[in-house]
Amino acid sequence: MARIVMKFGGTSVADVPRIKAVAERVKREVDQGHEVAVVVSAMAGTTNQLVAWTNEAARLHDAREYDVVVASGEQVTVGLLAIALQELGVSARSWLGWQIPVRTDGVNGKARIEAIDCGEMIRRFGQKQVAVVAGFQGVGPDGRVTTLGRGGSDTSAVALAAALEADRCDIFTDVDGVYTTDPRIVAKARKLDKITYEEMLEMASQGAKVLQTRSVELAMKHRVRVQVLSSFEDKPGTLVTDEDEIVEKEMVSGIAYSRDEAKITLVRVPDRPGVAAAIFGPLADAAVNVDMIVQNVSSGPEQTTDLTFTVGRADLARAVKLLTDQRQKLGYADLISDATVVKVSVIGVGMRSHAGVAQRMFRALAEKGINIQVISTSEIKVSVLISEEYTELALRALHTAYGLDAA
Amino acid sequence: MARIVMKFGGTSVADVPRIKAVAERVKREVDQGHEVAVVVSAMAGTTNQLVAWTNEAARLHDAREYDVVVASGEQVTVGLLAIALQELGVSARSWLGWQIPVRTDGVNGKARIEAIDCGEMIRRFGQKQVAVVAGFQGVGPDGRVTTLGRGGSDTSAVALAAALEADRCDIFTDVDGVYTTDPRIVAKARKLDKITYEEMLEMASQGAKVLQTRSVELAMKHRVRVQVLSSFEDKPGTLVTDEDEIVEKEMVSGIAYSRDEAKITLVRVPDRPGVAAAIFGPLADAAVNVDMIVQNVSSGPEQTTDLTFTVGRADLARAVKLLTDQRQKLGYADLISDATVVKVSVIGVGMRSHAGVAQRMFRALAEKGINIQVISTSEIKVSVLISEEYTELALRALHTAYGLDAA
Repeated sequence: MARIVMKFGGTSVADVPRIKAVAERVKREVDQGHEVAVVVSAMAGTTNQLVAWTNEAARLHDAREYDVVVASGEQVTVGLLAIALQELGVSARSWLGWQIPVRTDGVNGKARIEAIDCGEMIRRFGQKQVAVVAGFQGVGPDGRVTTLGRGGSDTSAVALAAALEADRCDIFTDVDGVYTTDPRIVAKARKLDKITYEEMLEMASQGAKVLQTRSVELAMKHRVRVQVLSSFEDKPGTLVTDEDEIVEKEMVSGIAYSRDEAKITLVRVPDRPGVAAAIFGPLADAAVNVDMIVQNVSSGPEQTTDLTFTVGRADLARAVKLLTDQRQKLGYADLISDATVVKVSVIGVGMRSHAGVAQRMFRALAEKGINIQVISTSEIKVSVLISEEYTELALRALHTAYGLDAA
Repeated sequence: MARIVMKFGGTSVADVPRIKAVAERVKREVDQGHEVAVVVSAMAGTTNQLVAWTNEAARLHDAREYDVVVASGEQVTVGLLAIALQELGVSARSWLGWQIPVRTDGVNGKARIEAIDCGEMIRRFGQKQVAVVAGFQGVGPDGRVTTLGRGGSDTSAVALAAALEADRCDIFTDVDGVYTTDPRIVAKARKLDKITYEEMLEMASQGAKVLQTRSVELAMKHRVRVQVLSSFEDKPGTLVTDEDEIVEKEMVSGIAYSRDEAKITLVRVPDRPGVAAAIFGPLADAAVNVDMIVQNVSSGPEQTTDLTFTVGRADLARAVKLLTDQRQKLGYADLISDATVVKVSVIGVGMRSHAGVAQRMFRALAEKGINIQVISTSEIKVSVLISEEYTELALRALHTAYGLDAA
């Protein structure tokens, strides 16, 4: 007997027939004697509709009220799934965030889970009752509804698995696992049987959409064995786990890309102490997230430098306005922005013990005539910024260069 | 300065533009210095959709889960209305049933409100904050979501007005008040300026859809001044109030009708003690509500009687099956059922002091050749069951006979 958390996303519960199929899937685990908590998202499309209504009501709106509105979507699916389970003869009850409770901080719209009280849920496991839990939602210190940010149901599931000390956390989704890269672009992409937390974290934060980044952080912290698998097909998925569970480490496990990037270059910035703080301070204050940064060595009689960095594409206009407003103060000669860039990252814990990973990347891109605009690296990742039009070409070239192509 | 509860139904909050219009209407009261709590229903159509999903998930379903699903509709509208009010510069926050809390009994699907704790709401009135309250929902003794039954937001509003000791409770709806009868059928129907609680209660329970019956009971019990008025037009509605506030009492104030009726006749029932209990006991156990009952005097050598009664049209098939199954035991000769009947009721507190009210009804119907099948009376009401095809004819004849026609 195991204790399992199963999580089903919006496309898996898009309508009542699919919710019934989820109930059948859950029943199979129950029939094997397992203790099961199921975390569900809102029906596909519902959250978008609810968000659109809040924007229609007011462009800038109270995040506490936004949370009240959008948390309603998961309330619908937990009730329906509990009914569908009962119809199959499975004892089940729904749990809303405030009922468990899932205690979060008070940052509405992107709250962080602080504690989950599972006592009653575990007691009911003893009575063979399945817990059907609303993902994405919690309750803040003031007793108001909070939500965890888009994709937050993954985080709900992993946090619940940690609180329940579950044997595993199965994330059912519309893809059947984690791939070496996006299979819609690279036909030879392979599904990975296993991936380390660290790699999954880089994959998620570098653009792979399969799991919410925060859920992977949480899984890594609490050592929750997460499995990503298809809600529509019955086959093994990808296990996200500890590095020591993975015997043979590839140099590179996967290649991620993100189109959510834009590049800003400040031309001839005076190269004096404090100038970086003067530039990035106001951006941080305005909640503009700066990712890659490169600064050339100073040149010319006036000791100026060119400073290039990337921001989220959605923040580009705001960032440009902010910097333009302060041009006098910052003293740069020109500002060039470009939203037609993509960040491509090769990721693998094997990098730590293999030399030449970055070099292989640069050569593969050069051979295809792809110009690298910015480079950044971490212990298990090399990222480059290239022109967006080369995305597919770059992914395929790199996938082959690192020996990831399926046979 | 007054303390006001305003309630807006589903058509009044059917989309975001209408919710914004509601916010404008609320702001007018706030601008006059009033303390305001607003109770809202789900967007028109939402509750039907949610109910349909629960039925699709399972024909017979756990009422606790049904409540979780359907209560989500009001959660959406309170958040959106709070946002819309804030956008107009009005301080506002949403309140869900469990947050206030609105404590109910544990009868899911048709819970009764037991207590509403308004302390925090009143404290915030002092800070000029409008309370935006989800109608229809509460929380049961076990901490689970309960709902009050269809139309329950009226009851939420009146109960809140009672708990807040509000000066009045304004029910905004898609009609502009309570009419002497259905104006879609009788062109000369008049809007009433005032109506007594007792009359409104009979009107509601005899088929007038303008207020939920339970909300009127509650208003009568707590002497809440309820006003029914249009959410789309700015003009006075109908005040539901104490009898002594109404100086001139009409003999008849209104004429209601209900098509939700079906008639069952048991032919030649043995007329012996206990037979009525043997018939109506099982129906009550099966939650079939029996309304009008008539029994003829016994006749014939075998001392049998014919027993006629009405049940809700939705319950007819179930009632007929139940009685047919027990035919042997009950010993009747034949069962005749008829779903093409309508109940027409004339209602007025003036009846108490006026003789001949029923007689005038019978004569008016007879003059039009309308046969009366069953009669029942109460202190302030006379109801008759007639063939459904005469509905419009009967309503118009009675409206004229009691001098209710508009000039």
